[in-house]
Amino acid sequence: MFHRVAIVGLGLIGSSIGLAIHTANSAQQIMGYDSDKHVAHHARKIGAIDQSCTTLADTVRGAEFVILATSLSPIRSFFQDIAAVALPGTVVTDVASTKAQVISWAEEYLPASVFFLGGHPILRKDTYDNEPATASLFKNCVYCLTPTKRTSSIALDKVMQLIEILDARVRFLEPVEHDGLVAGVNQLPIVISAILMNTVAESPSWQDAAIVAEKSMQDMTRMTNNDPEVYRDICLTNSEALSRWLSEYIRELNSFRNQLILHDSNLTQTFLKSKKLHEQWQAMQDAN
Amino acid sequence: MFHRVAIVGLGLIGSSIGLAIHTANSAQQIMGYDSDKHVAHHARKIGAIDQSCTTLADTVRGAEFVILATSLSPIRSFFQDIAAVALPGTVVTDVASTKAQVISWAEEYLPASVFFLGGHPILRKDTYDNEPATASLFKNCVYCLTPTKRTSSIALDKVMQLIEILDARVRFLEPVEHDGLVAGVNQLPIVISAILMNTVAESPSWQDAAIVAEKSMQDMTRMTNNDPEVYRDICLTNSEALSRWLSEYIRELNSFRNQLILHDSNLTQTFLKSKKLHEQWQAMQDAN
Repeated sequence: MFHRVAIVGLGLIGSSIGLAIHTANSAQQIMGYDSDKHVAHHARKIGAIDQSCTTLADTVRGAEFVILATSLSPIRSFFQDIAAVALPGTVVTDVASTKAQVISWAEEYLPASVFFLGGHPILRKDTYDNEPATASLFKNCVYCLTPTKRTSSIALDKVMQLIEILDARVRFLEPVEHDGLVAGVNQLPIVISAILMNTVAESPSWQDAAIVAEKSMQDMTRMTNNDPEVYRDICLTNSEALSRWLSEYIRELNSFRNQLILHDSNLTQTFLKSKKLHEQWQAMQDAN
Repeated sequence: MFHRVAIVGLGLIGSSIGLAIHTANSAQQIMGYDSDKHVAHHARKIGAIDQSCTTLADTVRGAEFVILATSLSPIRSFFQDIAAVALPGTVVTDVASTKAQVISWAEEYLPASVFFLGGHPILRKDTYDNEPATASLFKNCVYCLTPTKRTSSIALDKVMQLIEILDARVRFLEPVEHDGLVAGVNQLPIVISAILMNTVAESPSWQDAAIVAEKSMQDMTRMTNNDPEVYRDICLTNSEALSRWLSEYIRELNSFRNQLILHDSNLTQTFLKSKKLHEQWQAMQDAN
């Protein structure tokens, strides 16, 4: 049982964490903060938090456990604010999808008496789908934790307690390893999708092309409907890994394009391979 | 009312056309052919066709209207077979997603007494989704027709009758214009998706990366689950237009990658633009 929890950022992830903690009767009090008053009001209304605060300092003051459920960019200044008010022994965690940068900010701004451990829950829903918050959002989901040599066991215990409440499955990864993996599998698709949308829709023929677009174009561009600054932050805080993946991707595209120009029927291999890899991936998921 | 219709290829599109014609009581008899006996049997069972034939010649013989609802590559030899048995005045159409190549095959192999007009219905469902055939599949869908100077009004009348039965909306396009549009909006996504799957899943870290993959990777690779030879044929019959789109796409990716390496926060523009273009596209669709 937590005494007082502070949840900063009350979107899908923050509100669902609050609902899960309440459903499990695992906190005496949950304080909440969101820069958007309407979002904070809604979180209070659905019972994700007990009380909404108007400043980060009020939210965090007296909390034993601070959960930062925001996008990346505000986290840096949140650490500075937390440093000013947090009690010794407070545990801080986050849910951002890039970890090395957040850890370096934590090491720079948080005092030694405040314990940080970075996390990244892998959802089956996407924040851009406008799904409602639910206590079961994280059920059976993988929840990545990226401890370092400096991580306190106090932080580890508290975040593991949270993961148990969420009914998620913990996965430990080195921060840099985590960032390399998500750069390929989650961040490369963001770039691919945005640039597909721009390439096709900025062409002079777009008005006519839109009429003949099949469902695949929808599937491939759905994720453009998200906050551009969230995407910018993801890219800039993980630029090295992401640019490596982009280089590899561009290399493969160029090689396919050369086959296409030569009318090389070996290009079937690309589609045979992707079908097989996709089927194997589906089988892996079904087995889990 | 058609006297006798021949449907060649009894998958989602062919069977749905048969069901729509039957539902509208618009044919005395529908003959059907599929190289897969089970598929043909199923089409007969659900009432999409009246009779299943074991050869293309038997299917087409005596038909006034032949609908080729197959993928691209068999169409060439179908034209040769049709030429041998079709009555003078027979109208032939197809549904393949590349048109200039099919038209040039028709001009090469069909006699002057057999009238061809190429078509391409734009579905809201995808064939790789394994959806069941339905008479209403084409309702309100755009149905592209690509007549040329050599197209007979007899062919145009008959295909327009079909489009009316399907409750689709006709759209006339020059064959080369059609192929340029679909290359960007429908065929470029096929290549992007396959190469994303291969780039990520052929990396040594894939087993670990798969565990942290979010829903976006699913959305972006769903279309790899289709017949590789269908994709090969699409690429090889429309290679010029597709390679132009690929070049433009690769150029945009390279430019983004350079911004990323320079930590240029202007890369936000890419995501701002794609979000806005996507929203405008959604609004266009909602207005239709």
